[in-house]
Amino acid sequence: MDKLECLFCQKSFPLDIFFPFCPLCQEPLLCPDPLSNKPGIPKAFPTIKNWYSWLPLSTYNPYLSLGEGRSPLIRCGNLLPSNELPPVFFKNESFNPTASFKDRGTALAIQKAVSLGINKIGTVSTGNMAASTAAYGAKARITTYLLLKEDTSDQKARTPAVFGPKIFKVKADYGKLFTESYSLGKKHGIYFMNSVDPFRIEGYKITGFEIFRQLNNKAPDFIFVPLSSGGHLIGLIRAFQNLGHSGTLRKFPVFVGVQAEGCAPLVRAFERSESRFRRIPEGKTVAHSISNPDPPGGNIVLKLIQKNKGVLVSVSDEEILEAQKILAVKEGINCLPASAASLAGFFKLKTSGRIKKNHISVLIITGSGLKKLTPTDTSSDPCLSISLRKLDTVFSNERKIY
Amino acid sequence: MDKLECLFCQKSFPLDIFFPFCPLCQEPLLCPDPLSNKPGIPKAFPTIKNWYSWLPLSTYNPYLSLGEGRSPLIRCGNLLPSNELPPVFFKNESFNPTASFKDRGTALAIQKAVSLGINKIGTVSTGNMAASTAAYGAKARITTYLLLKEDTSDQKARTPAVFGPKIFKVKADYGKLFTESYSLGKKHGIYFMNSVDPFRIEGYKITGFEIFRQLNNKAPDFIFVPLSSGGHLIGLIRAFQNLGHSGTLRKFPVFVGVQAEGCAPLVRAFERSESRFRRIPEGKTVAHSISNPDPPGGNIVLKLIQKNKGVLVSVSDEEILEAQKILAVKEGINCLPASAASLAGFFKLKTSGRIKKNHISVLIITGSGLKKLTPTDTSSDPCLSISLRKLDTVFSNERKIY
Repeated sequence: MDKLECLFCQKSFPLDIFFPFCPLCQEPLLCPDPLSNKPGIPKAFPTIKNWYSWLPLSTYNPYLSLGEGRSPLIRCGNLLPSNELPPVFFKNESFNPTASFKDRGTALAIQKAVSLGINKIGTVSTGNMAASTAAYGAKARITTYLLLKEDTSDQKARTPAVFGPKIFKVKADYGKLFTESYSLGKKHGIYFMNSVDPFRIEGYKITGFEIFRQLNNKAPDFIFVPLSSGGHLIGLIRAFQNLGHSGTLRKFPVFVGVQAEGCAPLVRAFERSESRFRRIPEGKTVAHSISNPDPPGGNIVLKLIQKNKGVLVSVSDEEILEAQKILAVKEGINCLPASAASLAGFFKLKTSGRIKKNHISVLIITGSGLKKLTPTDTSSDPCLSISLRKLDTVFSNERKIY
Repeated sequence: MDKLECLFCQKSFPLDIFFPFCPLCQEPLLCPDPLSNKPGIPKAFPTIKNWYSWLPLSTYNPYLSLGEGRSPLIRCGNLLPSNELPPVFFKNESFNPTASFKDRGTALAIQKAVSLGINKIGTVSTGNMAASTAAYGAKARITTYLLLKEDTSDQKARTPAVFGPKIFKVKADYGKLFTESYSLGKKHGIYFMNSVDPFRIEGYKITGFEIFRQLNNKAPDFIFVPLSSGGHLIGLIRAFQNLGHSGTLRKFPVFVGVQAEGCAPLVRAFERSESRFRRIPEGKTVAHSISNPDPPGGNIVLKLIQKNKGVLVSVSDEEILEAQKILAVKEGINCLPASAASLAGFFKLKTSGRIKKNHISVLIITGSGLKKLTPTDTSSDPCLSISLRKLDTVFSNERKIY
């Protein structure tokens, strides 16, 4: 019988896939650490299947995979003058089936769902998680329900819609919708794999394992990750906790969760050394994907960050947009503002002097910029119209034109 | 001194990076086969660097990489009733830095450019190749020129524009623009890495090598690939030619190039067993990325397909759109119509009886559907608007609603 654990009450409970929350304190439950104390590190560059002994799976079905994971760790070259630049790598999660890190979590949750005989899944989301859940639902031939906010644009609903899920725009407060989805799911046998689902979080662990493998079985000094519901950061921290327990980790990395200033309830609590955050009325930032005024995994994040000497920082919209531009024009990476928060957070810590020249940093790019075209300047036509015969003159005199 | 070869004149010429065409017959020149007769097959799941001895590179600079390649080979599960389905795999090239196969070619061409001291690159393209070239140009800190057709929409130009290239919409016939780009490039020192660039083609070889490795050092029976300029198919065929020359290949796969009926100059020539194709006035198909009425690599494709017992087939727009829908709703893969041509071609050969139950097929998905949202039905709102309290009733009675 599978069990889940509460970090706060220090108790474990039998798995209820439809309601993975602590019956005592209502915080999200997490999976226990891997049973085997010292699972081996797979060689080469492994898939989910190869991390089997680190994951809460009793079966692995290859027909449920969309090729998730094994994203590249890209060397950064051009961010700062080379004599000032400590080693920086981008872990680019847009190399995933629906172009965001969410696929890591959905891939694991769908394995669990099928192994439990679940035939209906769902999620509450407005963006990346909806597309991811719909794609895996299609692959697994499982009916998929997406609950979106009432004001979600048709344009935004089209990305998940291609996979044929059942989509509802619901007239309700988003927080209430999140809570209510579980009651509805339990009643109607729909497994809502939402942002802090314990199996989704286990899927995010694999990103951490890969970083460790890609750096030749070593942790970086810093890992920067945009912070919203908390699920992603919790999964990444758990990866290194698992590695620590297995005896293969020499030094725990410093995790840096980055929120936008306009929506930073966890940073506020962190700065006040509080163990619980207070929800804010509303998030206001260009980084929509990390605008969550009431993150369901927030208290777990605070606990894990405080325990592991991590850091939470906030960055302004201007810093985010500048980082997004730098990533595109200097590093060839097209990402959404929320992803660029990693780099904005890196600059913040670099400026503060916390990052030394020999410190290795990994910046997680959470998803592709193709999901929404947000060029650095949308107001002007990016092109110059010209005749073929004039091109020659232009190339000869281009300095005068640009 | 690097050399390039003409398949038709059977001669080799010193490399002119600015004009890689045969001075005698004007066909595109190709790189010679790898010098070493038996380069080793790398273990694990290698990057470009590990295929070094199979590629025309004398240096490898890791700072030019955007993490290209190593795309997954995904098991197909739901296309046909399971008792009728031969083994089918999708090689999904949307797992690349700018979400299309073009990155494979650009990644290699940029290595070559930098090793030759080139400081200006360009391409003639309206879509995927423009974004790819701009991204790698940004990473390499090389000025990048994109020449687009005059009627290219601003929307379409925005994807490459984020990387900061110099973009020109040129008033000229597209075929003429392609030809002229080389004269301009030669005069102004701009390396135009267009669709049939010999180094770009060498980059596409790696996709073939990966398929061979992913099937445990075996070729599949069939490889389906959408066919436009010809560069991609030429690269894939060359991969297996190289493997054959190295002595590691038991059986050469049957390559199936798929064109849209509305733009199928190469299929016409193939069906008439002609060695040269005739350009058609205009392409008309929903699969824009493979609508090339005058493919520059066309004659090489015909020669290689005839020599290696390959096949060229055309599929209708209806078949393409149906295949695109099946990929999304049954396989969880969101791709553009051009990519879905692979599956439409597979269905065609399956129906003809050519593919037996034990034949392994690999279908290449050339790029991501995120580049343009083309849901199966754009006319209607994909969502149902509803109140939270009514959701319960809906879930209870959903059969009545859908």
